[in-house]
Amino acid sequence: MKEKSRKSSTQTLGEIGLDNFATYLMNRIAARYNAQMSEQISNLGLNTLKMRALAVLSIIESPLISELAVYSVTEKSTLSRALDALEEDGLAQRSVDPCDSRAVRVKITGAGRDVFDGVWPHMFEAYQTMFEGIDDDERHAFIGTLKKLLRNTKIHDF
Amino acid sequence: MKEKSRKSSTQTLGEIGLDNFATYLMNRIAARYNAQMSEQISNLGLNTLKMRALAVLSIIESPLISELAVYSVTEKSTLSRALDALEEDGLAQRSVDPCDSRAVRVKITGAGRDVFDGVWPHMFEAYQTMFEGIDDDERHAFIGTLKKLLRNTKIHDF
Repeated sequence: MKEKSRKSSTQTLGEIGLDNFATYLMNRIAARYNAQMSEQISNLGLNTLKMRALAVLSIIESPLISELAVYSVTEKSTLSRALDALEEDGLAQRSVDPCDSRAVRVKITGAGRDVFDGVWPHMFEAYQTMFEGIDDDERHAFIGTLKKLLRNTKIHDF
Repeated sequence: MKEKSRKSSTQTLGEIGLDNFATYLMNRIAARYNAQMSEQISNLGLNTLKMRALAVLSIIESPLISELAVYSVTEKSTLSRALDALEEDGLAQRSVDPCDSRAVRVKITGAGRDVFDGVWPHMFEAYQTMFEGIDDDERHAFIGTLKKLLRNTKIHDF
């Protein structure tokens, strides 16, 4: 026990401090980024969920709905409603997988791609603002650590 | 323009890659952490919102509701419902600020503190699992970068 006592002893949240608690910081940064984006995209008839789905669909070819739910960080039932809206607007299309009749895949349409191309500069600008004053080395190290955290919290197979 | 052309030219999301896009990674990590926690706290009659509010109240003495909303990363109207539930369970208490009758402050009760003390070891364990294989230097550097990102996305005064 002794050699790992420092790691395994429980610090309190007060000892760590909210401002040093990584999940708190990540939640706040994500909330700010999402709030900023949602303001900018609302006049394009989009919301965060639709934007995330389009972002994923713009770079992943015809994912399964379950994959899209994971990549767009959206509960399946919530995603379903977002897809209804995207289909209604002609921006995405669901279809049954030709090799597996129980599997549904989603595809972005040409119009959907155009809409995302209009949104992306805003996303990229917000992203650059977020990393202002952070050099390439620090950004790479940061993203490297994020990838480790994602692996450590793995709950899906992809 | 020329000296900043590399920074100001817009890369596409496909060029960056979803797996290198920090906000995507943060959203996914936060979602996994929240999902894991919400499973563990549901049998304590808590949900993510109530847990976050208790966590903040356990270390910040009697914040204003607006401050609690920011620190717990919760919309005011949603927080209001969580506070109704916490008050009903005797875990927190709202009261009018004695110096400003328009300001409402929130305080954790003894019972609320006991409940959070029961939850915290789970939060801390999930946190340690998340940082498994990441040494102190890397963790400190990571948290340092998170603080810069939070400053760069500042939208509130606190």
